[in-house]
Amino acid sequence: MKDHKFQRKALQVKEAQAKIIKYANPLEPQEISLNDCCGRYLAEEVIAPHPFPAFNRSSMDGYAIIAADTKHCVNGQFVWLEMVDNIPCGAVASVDITSGTAARIMTGAQVPSGADTVVMLEVTETREEEGKTYVGILKKQEAKSNITPMGLELSPGELVLPAGRLISAGDIAVLAAFGIHTVKVYRRPKVAVFATGTELLEVHEPLQPGKIRNSNSPMLEALVKEAGGEPVMLGSIVDDLELARSKVQMALDTYDFVITTGGVSVGDYDIMGDLVREQSGDMLFNKVTMRPGSVTTAAVRGGKLLLALSGNPGACFVGFQLFARPVIRLMQCASQPFLPEWSATLGADYNRVNDFTRFVRARLEIRDGSLYAFPAAIDESSVMVTIKDSDCLIVVPPEERGLSAGAKVTIIKLPGEICG
Amino acid sequence: MKDHKFQRKALQVKEAQAKIIKYANPLEPQEISLNDCCGRYLAEEVIAPHPFPAFNRSSMDGYAIIAADTKHCVNGQFVWLEMVDNIPCGAVASVDITSGTAARIMTGAQVPSGADTVVMLEVTETREEEGKTYVGILKKQEAKSNITPMGLELSPGELVLPAGRLISAGDIAVLAAFGIHTVKVYRRPKVAVFATGTELLEVHEPLQPGKIRNSNSPMLEALVKEAGGEPVMLGSIVDDLELARSKVQMALDTYDFVITTGGVSVGDYDIMGDLVREQSGDMLFNKVTMRPGSVTTAAVRGGKLLLALSGNPGACFVGFQLFARPVIRLMQCASQPFLPEWSATLGADYNRVNDFTRFVRARLEIRDGSLYAFPAAIDESSVMVTIKDSDCLIVVPPEERGLSAGAKVTIIKLPGEICG
Repeated sequence: MKDHKFQRKALQVKEAQAKIIKYANPLEPQEISLNDCCGRYLAEEVIAPHPFPAFNRSSMDGYAIIAADTKHCVNGQFVWLEMVDNIPCGAVASVDITSGTAARIMTGAQVPSGADTVVMLEVTETREEEGKTYVGILKKQEAKSNITPMGLELSPGELVLPAGRLISAGDIAVLAAFGIHTVKVYRRPKVAVFATGTELLEVHEPLQPGKIRNSNSPMLEALVKEAGGEPVMLGSIVDDLELARSKVQMALDTYDFVITTGGVSVGDYDIMGDLVREQSGDMLFNKVTMRPGSVTTAAVRGGKLLLALSGNPGACFVGFQLFARPVIRLMQCASQPFLPEWSATLGADYNRVNDFTRFVRARLEIRDGSLYAFPAAIDESSVMVTIKDSDCLIVVPPEERGLSAGAKVTIIKLPGEICG
Repeated sequence: MKDHKFQRKALQVKEAQAKIIKYANPLEPQEISLNDCCGRYLAEEVIAPHPFPAFNRSSMDGYAIIAADTKHCVNGQFVWLEMVDNIPCGAVASVDITSGTAARIMTGAQVPSGADTVVMLEVTETREEEGKTYVGILKKQEAKSNITPMGLELSPGELVLPAGRLISAGDIAVLAAFGIHTVKVYRRPKVAVFATGTELLEVHEPLQPGKIRNSNSPMLEALVKEAGGEPVMLGSIVDDLELARSKVQMALDTYDFVITTGGVSVGDYDIMGDLVREQSGDMLFNKVTMRPGSVTTAAVRGGKLLLALSGNPGACFVGFQLFARPVIRLMQCASQPFLPEWSATLGADYNRVNDFTRFVRARLEIRDGSLYAFPAAIDESSVMVTIKDSDCLIVVPPEERGLSAGAKVTIIKLPGEICG
C-alpha cells in the first residue's frame, strides 16, 4: 500500500487540465432576466435584429436643414430659413424638410426626411416675422454633420455577442438596446465543497492544541462564487475512509461537481487519496508535476467530477485556480475557461530550486507600461498569508536553478484586479 | 436662460472628482457573516490575535526526532530510534521526544516537545523488536527541517488586513484561520437610478419611430453592482421638469445616492440641467473638460449626492466610471476608490482632434510583457457598442493633435479582466 502511494504517475499541468476538462460538460441553458445576467455566460450568439441606431439621429441640439441652403453664406451675411417643425427626442417630424426650411431638433431625435445636416443651436440666431420663426445661419454647413447615421454601430444580421461570452455591463446595454429582456445562459454549477481532517475546527471554535481552523472551506466558497459556481458547503469530516466515501457519493449524486480539500498526501490518513485509488478505473490523475499541489487528485464517477485538492492552503488555492476554475467555467460553456498567461519581468530574485514546475504566488506592478512580477516572500505550499496579496502566479519551470530580477517569466493572471 | 446654459464653468476631471468625493460620506458599519463578505470593504483593521501557525507544524509525513541523534550516520549504517508516539493531524503528543526516540507524525500535526526536526517517511525504514517499533534513518538530518515554525506567517499583534480593504478569497482564508466568523464592513449604498427622456422605451417594448429603448438604466444597474452598490431602479420619466423634481426629491429622501441619465445637455428639454441650476447653491459642477460627458452634472442636497449623467451611452458609461464609482466605493470607505492609471503604448494611430481631455474607450493587449492600448474604431459619445469591448480608457490630453501608434499614453483601467 505504501509503495503504491509513493509510485504515482505524475502528469504535467496541461496534461492534467486536458484530462479533467474532458468531463466538464455544459449544464442546461436557462432563460433569465436581463437584470440578472451580468457575470453569466451567453448560451447562444446574439444577432442584431435591426440596425443600430435604428434611425438617422441628431447628435446635437440645433436645426435640421439642407446643407446646400447655406452654400451662399459669405461675408457675415445670414441665410434665413423658415422653421417649420420642432422635433423633441422621441417624436417624429410632422413635415419633410424642403429647401428654405429648417426644423428645430434635439440631441437624439430622428432627423426629418429631406434634411441632410444638423447645425448646432449655438451658432444660430432666430427672428420672428409675421408669426413665423426664421433661423439665421452665418456659415456654410457641410452635409452629414452632427448626424449619426442609421446602422452606424450595427447592421441587421450582424453578430453582436458570441455564445460563451461572459456578460458585462456593456453587453447588457447592447442587449437592452435590441429589446432582449430575457437572456439564455447556462445554469451555474452547484459545487459541493468539503474538507477532511481530524485537525479541523470550525471557524467559530476556539483554538485547541494541535488543531487549526478550517480556512480552506470558506476560501473555496469565495473562489467557487468568483468562478461563477454556486457553492454548497458540506462542512468538514474527520479522517475516516467510510465517512469520506459516503459523503463523496452523496455529493456526487446530488451536485454537479465535488471539491474536497485535505487527505491527498502520502500519509496513513490520506483518505481522499485512498478513496480514489481504490476504484482506480475512474481516477484521472493523482500526481501533477507542480509545486505547490503535486498531490492534486481528480476522478470521474457517474459522469461527475471529483477534485481532491491538497489541504495546504497555498496548494489548495493554486489547485483550484488551475483545475476547478476551468471546470466551473466550462460547465457554463465559457469560451475562455483558463486564466490568461502573460509574459512579465521578474521584479526580484527567485532562488528556490524546484524539481517540478513551480507556481509562485506573486504581485504584479505596472511600471512605465511594462509588467513586473514580484514573488511573495514565502511561498511554501502550506503558507496561507501570501494568497491574499497575490494577483498572479509566476510559472517557474523545473529546469530553472534560480532566476534573477530582470528575467523574462511567464505568469498566470489570477482573477480580480491587478494590485499595483 | 439659453445664454446661462451655454456659459457653464468647466472643471477639470480631477477638480470635479475632488468636489464630488467630498460628499461621499461613509455609511454605517455592519457586522456580516464571513461567508458573505467577499467583495465588501473592511470597516476596521484586523490584527493577528495569535501566532500563525499557532504551533510548530510538521510539513511532511514522517518522524519527529532530535537531529543530533543522526549525527553519526555514515557509510550506509542505519541509526535506529525507538518510536514512542504516533501523532496524527489534530492530535497532541502523549510524550516528549528525548534522545533515542522518535514519533510518527503526519503533515500538519503539531511537532512534539523535544523534537527539532522531521524526517520524511520515504527515507526511513522500520523494524519490530520485542513489541517495540524502531525507525531506521540512513542519513544525517539537519535541525529545523520539515517544520513550519510557530508564527512564521504572522505574529500576535501584527496587522493582518487594513481597514478599507476590498475583501478577497485569500483574505477570507486568513480571517477564518483567526476564528473571525463575522466581519465588520460598511453598508452597501442604495443607489437610485432613473433615466429621463420622452424618447425612451422600456427594454421589452417594440421599437417605435424616433424612439429608443432605455439601455442606460440596465447598464447602470450592472455598473452599480460592480462598484459594490445596491441599485434601486426607478425606471424612466418623460421630459418634464416637475416630474423630475419630485422624483429626484423622493430618491434623495429615500436612498443614499441618486444617479440619473439624460437631460443634461443644452437643449430645451434638458430638465436635469435646469433642475440643478434652479437651486444653484448646491450645484457642484455642470461642465467638465472631458469628452465624452462634458455635460456631466453633480449637486448635493440635504447631504446626499445627485449625479446627472449624459444620456449618450458612451458618456454615461465614462461619467459613471469617473464619478459614480469612486463615490459608491468611498461610501464603503474603500482605501482605493479610483480606477488605476497606468502607462501603455498606443497600439494604433488616434487622430481625433480634441478641445477637452478625451477618454477613449480602448482594449488592452499584453505583448511580451508590455501593455498596448488599442482605441475603439468609433468613439463618439453616442456610441454604445464599443463599451462592451473596452477594458480601459486612453486619456488623450486636449493639446494633442493626433497620436501615432507607439506613443506613450496614460490609460485608466476599467473594472474587470483585461481582454487580451
